[in-house]
Amino acid sequence: MRVSVVGLGYWGPNLARNFNAVETAQLHSICDQDKNRLARIGENYPATKTCRDFSKVLSDPEVDAVAIATPVQTHYDLAKAALNAGKHVLVEKPMTDSVSAAEELVALADEKGLVLMVDHVFVYSSPVRKIKEIIDAGELGDLFFIDSVRINLGLFQHDVNVVWDLAPHDLSIVDYLVGRLPKSVSAFGAVHAGQGIEDVAYLNLDFDDGLVANFHVNWLSPVKVRHMLFGGSGKSILYNDLDASEPVKVYDRGITVDGDPEARHGLMVGYRSGDVLSPHFPKAEPLRVMAEHFADCVKNKKQKSMSSGQAGLRVVKILEAAQHSIKAQGGRITL
Amino acid sequence: MRVSVVGLGYWGPNLARNFNAVETAQLHSICDQDKNRLARIGENYPATKTCRDFSKVLSDPEVDAVAIATPVQTHYDLAKAALNAGKHVLVEKPMTDSVSAAEELVALADEKGLVLMVDHVFVYSSPVRKIKEIIDAGELGDLFFIDSVRINLGLFQHDVNVVWDLAPHDLSIVDYLVGRLPKSVSAFGAVHAGQGIEDVAYLNLDFDDGLVANFHVNWLSPVKVRHMLFGGSGKSILYNDLDASEPVKVYDRGITVDGDPEARHGLMVGYRSGDVLSPHFPKAEPLRVMAEHFADCVKNKKQKSMSSGQAGLRVVKILEAAQHSIKAQGGRITL
Amino acid sequence: MRVSVVGLGYWGPNLARNFNAVETAQLHSICDQDKNRLARIGENYPATKTCRDFSKVLSDPEVDAVAIATPVQTHYDLAKAALNAGKHVLVEKPMTDSVSAAEELVALADEKGLVLMVDHVFVYSSPVRKIKEIIDAGELGDLFFIDSVRINLGLFQHDVNVVWDLAPHDLSIVDYLVGRLPKSVSAFGAVHAGQGIEDVAYLNLDFDDGLVANFHVNWLSPVKVRHMLFGGSGKSILYNDLDASEPVKVYDRGITVDGDPEARHGLMVGYRSGDVLSPHFPKAEPLRVMAEHFADCVKNKKQKSMSSGQAGLRVVKILEAAQHSIKAQGGRITL
Amino acid sequence: MRVSVVGLGYWGPNLARNFNAVETAQLHSICDQDKNRLARIGENYPATKTCRDFSKVLSDPEVDAVAIATPVQTHYDLAKAALNAGKHVLVEKPMTDSVSAAEELVALADEKGLVLMVDHVFVYSSPVRKIKEIIDAGELGDLFFIDSVRINLGLFQHDVNVVWDLAPHDLSIVDYLVGRLPKSVSAFGAVHAGQGIEDVAYLNLDFDDGLVANFHVNWLSPVKVRHMLFGGSGKSILYNDLDASEPVKVYDRGITVDGDPEARHGLMVGYRSGDVLSPHFPKAEPLRVMAEHFADCVKNKKQKSMSSGQAGLRVVKILEAAQHSIKAQGGRITL
Repeated sequence: MRVSVVGLGYWGPNLARNFNAVETAQLHSICDQDKNRLARIGENYPATKTCRDFSKVLSDPEVDAVAIATPVQTHYDLAKAALNAGKHVLVEKPMTDSVSAAEELVALADEKGLVLMVDHVFVYSSPVRKIKEIIDAGELGDLFFIDSVRINLGLFQHDVNVVWDLAPHDLSIVDYLVGRLPKSVSAFGAVHAGQGIEDVAYLNLDFDDGLVANFHVNWLSPVKVRHMLFGGSGKSILYNDLDASEPVKVYDRGITVDGDPEARHGLMVGYRSGDVLSPHFPKAEPLRVMAEHFADCVKNKKQKSMSSGQAGLRVVKILEAAQHSIKAQGGRITL
Repeated sequence: MRVSVVGLGYWGPNLARNFNAVETAQLHSICDQDKNRLARIGENYPATKTCRDFSKVLSDPEVDAVAIATPVQTHYDLAKAALNAGKHVLVEKPMTDSVSAAEELVALADEKGLVLMVDHVFVYSSPVRKIKEIIDAGELGDLFFIDSVRINLGLFQHDVNVVWDLAPHDLSIVDYLVGRLPKSVSAFGAVHAGQGIEDVAYLNLDFDDGLVANFHVNWLSPVKVRHMLFGGSGKSILYNDLDASEPVKVYDRGITVDGDPEARHGLMVGYRSGDVLSPHFPKAEPLRVMAEHFADCVKNKKQKSMSSGQAGLRVVKILEAAQHSIKAQGGRITL
Repeated sequence: MRVSVVGLGYWGPNLARNFNAVETAQLHSICDQDKNRLARIGENYPATKTCRDFSKVLSDPEVDAVAIATPVQTHYDLAKAALNAGKHVLVEKPMTDSVSAAEELVALADEKGLVLMVDHVFVYSSPVRKIKEIIDAGELGDLFFIDSVRINLGLFQHDVNVVWDLAPHDLSIVDYLVGRLPKSVSAFGAVHAGQGIEDVAYLNLDFDDGLVANFHVNWLSPVKVRHMLFGGSGKSILYNDLDASEPVKVYDRGITVDGDPEARHGLMVGYRSGDVLSPHFPKAEPLRVMAEHFADCVKNKKQKSMSSGQAGLRVVKILEAAQHSIKAQGGRITL
Repeated sequence: MRVSVVGLGYWGPNLARNFNAVETAQLHSICDQDKNRLARIGENYPATKTCRDFSKVLSDPEVDAVAIATPVQTHYDLAKAALNAGKHVLVEKPMTDSVSAAEELVALADEKGLVLMVDHVFVYSSPVRKIKEIIDAGELGDLFFIDSVRINLGLFQHDVNVVWDLAPHDLSIVDYLVGRLPKSVSAFGAVHAGQGIEDVAYLNLDFDDGLVANFHVNWLSPVKVRHMLFGGSGKSILYNDLDASEPVKVYDRGITVDGDPEARHGLMVGYRSGDVLSPHFPKAEPLRVMAEHFADCVKNKKQKSMSSGQAGLRVVKILEAAQHSIKAQGGRITL
């Protein structure tokens, strides 16, 4: 797969580095409007072409795929043009800034038989894949709740609020793990600095089958927290992305509901308290795994990648609903 | 002050022990309907009377005050009767199970010129009083957000849900620290076990002046967390009640809003990152401090205690609104 | 078993409380020369006799056993007198202040057929008993090293140094777990405050069979640490007594020695890295368990308790050797 | 400064990368006997010469300085040849494998007026420089003890034991902070795997003026620990290199010795317990700072660098003494 990386801001150079390192991909070219940036990044890849004009990338028959790492507002136009030019597309998260744009891209990729993939990079991380394995094995029983906290003193984005900036990480993880859309979304946001952009927000997803998921995203926190808690009827999991030695802990503690309606007095619910296991798993750079997966999907024309356009669309649906709910002071939005 | 402790379930014996230990109070009597319980606890206090009939406590002219530690549904009746009998009243939190009952008690105490105090015990803890001191000194600047997490694998209450069980702690702390009611409340709860009783819930309080406060209470969490984060325009505070050595950390990190509307490019908001201070403060048993404060208020007829009936009423207002919001799937309730 | 607790300083009242609570024991009397102390503690036990004269305890035929919690210098005299009076003896750790005294007590108890037990209280704690279980099951393979750290800002003892004050805890744990004396001891101590009393010390025990154990005890540390690390050829264990939620962690990581003498290049030693398990075990108050065990030993004339006079003697042997080594600037002492 | 990096094993490529990035240095050439390694690393530096023959580096008049990152046994020969060829020398730690060799190099550099520097990289790290600042400001008062733990499951070196592998880090930090040699050294080591190479060791340094320093180095620990504790008569410091958010904590807790010889009863030593401060300091890559410092020393002919040959010699003196002590089962060696 010969790939062109478009957009060399914060994330694009990481994509370039990983595609360059992957055996099954070739970093064909890098593209950015900024001449200096292009030259500076280009120095690292003597064999890679540099290009300031996206249309040249599209018209180059050597290019099989493009990886789009530009601001979110431009994703739709660039991805659409690329698909129309017959290129496979990898696009940064969030996939688009609206549901309609995302739906159009999904339909277009489908029609053209091209791979459309979103860089939901956490989905490719070792801890998340380990958690997927544990959940799929049924160890958690019925999922009761997911609670996610991603907060720190962060750089403000000026084009998007904290929800569009941070929540795609957590929403894509949850989407990957539970594999379905919530029935409704409620969100609350607060603005303290900048120009009317939310810097603290809470999202609440109701799956209407016993599972609720809550998300706290925050750019103003003095402490950095990256916690995700999965509570089940069987086991439970704590995923602490900042705990280098034990990022995933499986708690063999849970509740068993005692259905006896006559037991009016005494404890209705039996608790178990058990071992805690921190499973070992090999570490791997998520972006490398993602790049290899993209190359594999392109080579084998697999449209159902681990972070397909469909997954990207589901995440954008939640983001858009959350946005609407914030404007409605937390009013619940049915998906 | 001669005090009678009424209700010897989980918390009452702690009240008895502390009133017995306080110099300015005398544990006059203990009262419970359960004969065995009464005898067992009574053994520790040979000089204290035991009594199964609450009316006898009320008619005893030696009793100056009663401390009510019975189930929440009974608080109103018992407290009302005690006030009507001319006794000062300490009541367990939450003060009552409805706003109207709380309002009536506050009015009655006012009318009778008696002390009505709620056992918001965290308000008397060393860390919370230290935080109060820091906030009152203006070190946090404008308060931007409060985020509270109180979760663990807990014993189910069968008469109240997780909101009424756990949130009074956090709501009373926030009420003590910020000293005003929020403008609106939204809450979301989920039921997994038991008979329709919420075991996971989130509360969102909007103070409508830049401050938002969020609360996560949960009986199903495999890990125990007791975090409260106060984000300000100046400093910020992390209060971790489970960190025995450094429960309060003051972060000299914050954001400064750059008002320049012309600064379209570049960073709008300047970050500062500074020292973290874990202040030293003497430890004291909160319940002991509370007992001494109650004795002092009774002796000096102070109606404005640190956890007065008014504070108890404000907490019940939020609890009741949260309850309504949960039934309305998170619909926002204006106070 | 009717027991008399002798010495009501720091630890004695804890013994009294636990013997009073145990079903199989009866707190017959408490004894201390200080009248006020005796009265104050006595208030809690209306049915228990108080006594200022130890000889009265010894001559009282109702007393089956004495629990000695006086300063270490007095242990030998009191325990000897008690054994000669036909009483079973529990003595605080360290058992005596010299090996010869300890040996004499062990011989005397043996001769009289009486129980002589030392209050090595950690041996009765849930985490240590869990670790014993894991080691005895062979999970650690060959024990390679034990590293123990017990440091904090502590109250100075004026009669003993930091080794005699803190190390008995760790030495008794190791003695219980490995069940044999080291072949040699080396120790280094430093004096900074007080009258020539060591406040920082390191002990090194060589078992001469591959196992080495090192101990750091320190009264001057600003941070409190209670770590014990057991490294084995199979699994390893970290015991952190201050981690309330996961005090014992079993690491399935280890090394496998590759014996191939020809493999001159490349890695000689293969590492494995595996899961970490924090086993669940019920919590119990160690002193309660100890008190019950003592009552059981007395009732059934079991001389081989979990912390017998023999174990106390082994610990004193190491302490005395460490003391000599410190005076010899760390010179190694063979046991 | 035009520098040639010699030896491209584990550490050499890091030196190359940093010298290439530093403004005041030019990566003139890289040198290694292994053709493939040379080619692979060389790819990153198109403008840098590659060379398999060290003598060519020495005879090249364009080369101002050499950075030696070869196995420790070769340091002496290569550094001596480089100094004799008139090149400034940076050498990896430990500087040499014997005191005599280190002394010779120091004398030679002195004679030639050349810079001889050792890559004691931790000396250039932000936390250590912050600690230096605090100690030099007198905040710790008299230093009472230093306790260092550097343990993990590590790759075995086959040419050196755990002391020569890990202790140079900690010894160089302590040398930098206290700036003087201890009066005596005692060390104990244990062998479990491999061919008679110590994998667990303890070093004890006595400065004979109240300060003692203890070091635990260990290749067999299942948990990774990087702790250094500095106990003073004033404040104390905990340096935890693995705590990303608060690596340096200053404890305002200490002891004050009460000199009153008449105070036979009661507490001889007064404790203070105070705030804990985690100071903020900018992060910087230590190796970058080191490279810049070396370039500055070479340019300005400064022989007294922050990690001079003299410092390297002091560290080797301790290592050699420790080695002798280990062979003498911990016998104390006077320096």
